[in-house]
Amino acid sequence: MINIIIAGPRGKMGSEAVRMVTNEENFRLVACLDNKNNGKKLMDLTPFPNLDVPIFEDIDECFDSVEADVLVDLTIPEVGYVHTKKAIEHNIRPVIGTTGFSQEQITELKELTKNKNLGGIIAPNFAIGAVLMMKFSQMAAKYMPDVEIIEKHHDNKLDAPSGTAVKTAEMIRETRKLKSQGHPDEKETLNGARGAEMDGMRIHSVRLPGLVAHQEVIFGGDGQLLSIKHDSFNRASFMDGVKFSVEKVFELNELVYGLENVI
Amino acid sequence: MINIIIAGPRGKMGSEAVRMVTNEENFRLVACLDNKNNGKKLMDLTPFPNLDVPIFEDIDECFDSVEADVLVDLTIPEVGYVHTKKAIEHNIRPVIGTTGFSQEQITELKELTKNKNLGGIIAPNFAIGAVLMMKFSQMAAKYMPDVEIIEKHHDNKLDAPSGTAVKTAEMIRETRKLKSQGHPDEKETLNGARGAEMDGMRIHSVRLPGLVAHQEVIFGGDGQLLSIKHDSFNRASFMDGVKFSVEKVFELNELVYGLENVI
Amino acid sequence: MINIIIAGPRGKMGSEAVRMVTNEENFRLVACLDNKNNGKKLMDLTPFPNLDVPIFEDIDECFDSVEADVLVDLTIPEVGYVHTKKAIEHNIRPVIGTTGFSQEQITELKELTKNKNLGGIIAPNFAIGAVLMMKFSQMAAKYMPDVEIIEKHHDNKLDAPSGTAVKTAEMIRETRKLKSQGHPDEKETLNGARGAEMDGMRIHSVRLPGLVAHQEVIFGGDGQLLSIKHDSFNRASFMDGVKFSVEKVFELNELVYGLENVI
Amino acid sequence: MINIIIAGPRGKMGSEAVRMVTNEENFRLVACLDNKNNGKKLMDLTPFPNLDVPIFEDIDECFDSVEADVLVDLTIPEVGYVHTKKAIEHNIRPVIGTTGFSQEQITELKELTKNKNLGGIIAPNFAIGAVLMMKFSQMAAKYMPDVEIIEKHHDNKLDAPSGTAVKTAEMIRETRKLKSQGHPDEKETLNGARGAEMDGMRIHSVRLPGLVAHQEVIFGGDGQLLSIKHDSFNRASFMDGVKFSVEKVFELNELVYGLENVI
Repeated sequence: MINIIIAGPRGKMGSEAVRMVTNEENFRLVACLDNKNNGKKLMDLTPFPNLDVPIFEDIDECFDSVEADVLVDLTIPEVGYVHTKKAIEHNIRPVIGTTGFSQEQITELKELTKNKNLGGIIAPNFAIGAVLMMKFSQMAAKYMPDVEIIEKHHDNKLDAPSGTAVKTAEMIRETRKLKSQGHPDEKETLNGARGAEMDGMRIHSVRLPGLVAHQEVIFGGDGQLLSIKHDSFNRASFMDGVKFSVEKVFELNELVYGLENVI
Repeated sequence: MINIIIAGPRGKMGSEAVRMVTNEENFRLVACLDNKNNGKKLMDLTPFPNLDVPIFEDIDECFDSVEADVLVDLTIPEVGYVHTKKAIEHNIRPVIGTTGFSQEQITELKELTKNKNLGGIIAPNFAIGAVLMMKFSQMAAKYMPDVEIIEKHHDNKLDAPSGTAVKTAEMIRETRKLKSQGHPDEKETLNGARGAEMDGMRIHSVRLPGLVAHQEVIFGGDGQLLSIKHDSFNRASFMDGVKFSVEKVFELNELVYGLENVI
Repeated sequence: MINIIIAGPRGKMGSEAVRMVTNEENFRLVACLDNKNNGKKLMDLTPFPNLDVPIFEDIDECFDSVEADVLVDLTIPEVGYVHTKKAIEHNIRPVIGTTGFSQEQITELKELTKNKNLGGIIAPNFAIGAVLMMKFSQMAAKYMPDVEIIEKHHDNKLDAPSGTAVKTAEMIRETRKLKSQGHPDEKETLNGARGAEMDGMRIHSVRLPGLVAHQEVIFGGDGQLLSIKHDSFNRASFMDGVKFSVEKVFELNELVYGLENVI
Repeated sequence: MINIIIAGPRGKMGSEAVRMVTNEENFRLVACLDNKNNGKKLMDLTPFPNLDVPIFEDIDECFDSVEADVLVDLTIPEVGYVHTKKAIEHNIRPVIGTTGFSQEQITELKELTKNKNLGGIIAPNFAIGAVLMMKFSQMAAKYMPDVEIIEKHHDNKLDAPSGTAVKTAEMIRETRKLKSQGHPDEKETLNGARGAEMDGMRIHSVRLPGLVAHQEVIFGGDGQLLSIKHDSFNRASFMDGVKFSVEKVFELNELVYGLENVI
C-alpha cells in the first residue's frame, strides 16, 4: 500500500488525481495540501462527497501529521518547487506535474534527492502515449532523418505550433543527422504552404472545431513511411502517467526530469 | 464494341491507355495518332510487341482510313485542341486528357459538340478517386465550412501547394460560406506553422521521400470531424477514369469539362 | 424567427437541443413537452437556470397554448410517433430524432404531411458528418466497387459491427455492382482476420479504451485509394444536424426520412 | 571502403542490392555469387550494363579470388545457410536476408561467429521502418496493454493475417500484460467483425486493389490513443536496412538475428 498526499486537489488535474488515487487498490490518499480549506476534510468540498481525508494549508504541519510515501503535486511552479524541497527533506518521494521549473531548480532538487538516495519524477507531460510518441520519434530519427510533424488542435488554441510539437522536434534534433529537407529548388506559390521550419524539419499546425489534441510524426525513406501518432481526448489521459510515476519512484534513487527518461 | 483511336501512344499516359484499351473486352484499338512512325504498326515500337494497329501522323488520313467512335487524346494542349476539333468534325467523340486549354477554346469546342449533339469529355484529372475527393469536399463544405487541406508528395516535387490542393480549394470556395478560420488572436511562434491561406482555409504541404501523391481534406464541426482522403500510387489510377469516360461520352450530347461534372 | 417546441428536454439529446435552440439568434424556444413537471418552467429544473419556458405534459394543451412552427422531438419511438401525428394535425413541422419507427408508421406520417403540404424530417442520425460519410460512400461505390469498412468504438460497446457500419453497407449496396472481394483463394490462418462479410464487402470492428465513435470507409482501385472517415467525439455533433433540419423543413412539403435525403 | 560480395544478384532483392551497393560511395562490389553465369561479368547480364564485376558459381573459388569484408546474401534458406557458414570460415561478415533458417541453424551460426569475434546479421525483414514499428509496438505494450493491429494489403495476397502482423503480435506478447480485450459481453452480430484473436489482441486484415503493404498498431488508454503505422510501397524500402546492416556488422562481435536487436 502506497500512502499519498495530493497537492492541489481542487484543480482540474488535481481532482482527476484524487479520483484515480482513491480508485486504485494499492494507493491510499492520506492527506491533501490546499491553499485554503485548512482543517476541513475532502468530503466537505463539493466534488468529493465521501472522502474522509484531511486538508492542510501548511506543508510542515501536513508532513508532521501524516505518514506518506509519495507527494503528488499538481499546482503551479512556485508552489511546486517549495513543496518538492520540503517533501525531499521529509523523505517523501515527489511526483510533480507542474511545468516551468528552471534548469537551476531542477539541478538543485536532483542533488538533494541524490544525497538521500530518494526517487522522484518531475513530468511536464504525464500522458504516457504522448511521451512514447516523442521518445519513439527520437529513436526513429536516427535511422530515418526525413521527418515532418503535423499537430492538430481545437481552433480555440492561440499558439502555433504547439508546445508538444516543438518539444518533439527538440528531442528529434538530438539524434537526427542535420539535413535540410525537401527539394533544394522547391517553391511556395502560396506563402506558408510548407509549414514552419526547425532545423530543416517541417511542422504543420491544423486548427479546426471538433479537434481536441492530436499529433502525428511522419518519417519518410525510400519506398516507405513510418508514422507515429498520438490522440488525446481528455485529461484522463494524464492519470495513467501519474499512476505509473507513483509506482516508479520506488525504483529510482534520484529525481528524474521527464517521463521519457523512465519509460 | 467501341472503336477507339489513341493519340500519343508512346507517352507515359498514352502507353498505359494502349494497355487498358487492348485489355478491355468491349474496346477495340483501331488506330494511333503519333508525331512520328507514320505507316508503322504499334508492334513495331518496343513496348507493344503484339499489336497490329496502324499508326498515322496525319489526322485527316487517320480519320478517313478507320472507323472510330472515340478519340482518346493524351498529348499536349496545342495538339489536343486541333485533334479535338477534327474529331468533332468527323463525329468522333473526344476524350481528352491534356490540361491547359483556354476558357475560349473550351467554350468553342463545347459549342461545336452541341451543334452536332455529340458527347465528349475534357478532364485535367482522370483519377476517379481524386475527382470524387474534390466533388465530395465541395459538397461537404456547404454544411461544414471549417476546412483544412493536407497534401503530401515526394520531396522531388518543386511547387507547394499542389495543383490538386488549389483546385480543391477553388471548388470548395463555390459552396462554402466565406469565413476566416482559426482563433482571431492565434499567433505563429514559428513562421508558416499554420500553412498557406486561401479564402480563410488553410493548406499544408508535406514533402518526404517515400510519399507518392496524397491529399486529405478535413472538415471540423462541433464534436465531429469528416475527412476525405485520396492516395495515388501510380499512373494506373488514371485509367479507370479514361475507361469510364470512353463509355460515358455515349450518354452525353455535348462536351463536358471536368470529370466531376459527369460523376 | 422560428418558434420551437422541444419534447424531451431533460434527456441527453434534449438538453443539448435546449442549449442549442436558446443560443441561436433566429430560434425561439416557446415550450417544452415533458412526461412530468407540468405547469413548471424550464428554469425550475436544475440544468436550465434562466429559461422562462413553460412545460406541458399534455400535447393538446401545449399546442393550444403556444404558437409554434417546429416540434423538435428527442424522446422514444412510441411517444415520438404520437407527437409527430399531433404536430402534423396542428400544422407544426416535425423534426424527429427518435429511431425505431416502423416502415408503416413512416409511410402513414409521410402521407399526412403530403396532404397538408407540410415539411418534416425524421432522422435516425443527426450528425451531419456521419450522414455525409454514408452518402459519399454510396456515391463512390458506383465508381469504385471494392470497399471495406473499419469502425472503431470504445471497448464498452457491446455489439459489433456498429449500426452505422451496417447502415453504410446497406446504402453502398444500392449503388455498388455486386462482387465478391479479395482473392478467390484467400485463406484465414487466424479465424476472423478478414472481418465480417456483407454482400462481398468486409467490415472490421475495433474496440479500445480511448476510442469514442469513428468510422472509415476505404475504396480501392488500380493504383489509388479513396477514404472517407468520420470521427464523433460527443453529442454536440448531433446539434448541427438538428439546427439544419429546423431550418430545412420550411423548404420541404412532405416528411422526409433520413438526413441523407435532404443534404 | 567496404568490399562486398552479393549472392543472388539476379533476384528481385538481389538486383536492388547491386544497385544500392554500386551507388554508395563507401561500398565496393567486388564479386557476385550466382547459380549460373560462372566466369561472366555482371555487365554481361541484361540489367547491369556497366558493371565489371566477376560472377562465381563456386563459393570457395569466389572467396579465394577476391578480398571481401561482407557477404550480402539474398538467396534462399538452404543456399543462404551454406553461404553463411563458408563466409564465417573466411572471416567475411554475413548480412543475410533469407528467411526460414531453423532455430538450430541460427544457434550454430551464432556460435561460429562468437568464436571468431565476427559480426553478422540475419534479418527476415530489412525494412527499417517496419522493424521500428514492431520494436516500438513491443515497447508501448508494456505501458498500454490494449492493442489492435490493422494490416492492409493488395487483394492478390492469399493469407490473412500477414506474417508481419503475426510477428508484431508475438513481439508485443513478450512485454504485454496478458489480458482479454473488449467488453466481456461483446457480441458479433456479423461473424468475424471483431477480427482474429491472438492472446486477447485483435488483428484485422484489409484487402483491396490499390493497397500495397501497410500496417497500423493502435494502443488505447483512458482518453488517449497511440498509433504506429508503417507503409511500404516497394522493394526500395528494404535497401536502407541492407545498407545499415553492412555498416553495422563492423561494430558487432557475433551474429545477431533480427534487425530489431541492433537498432
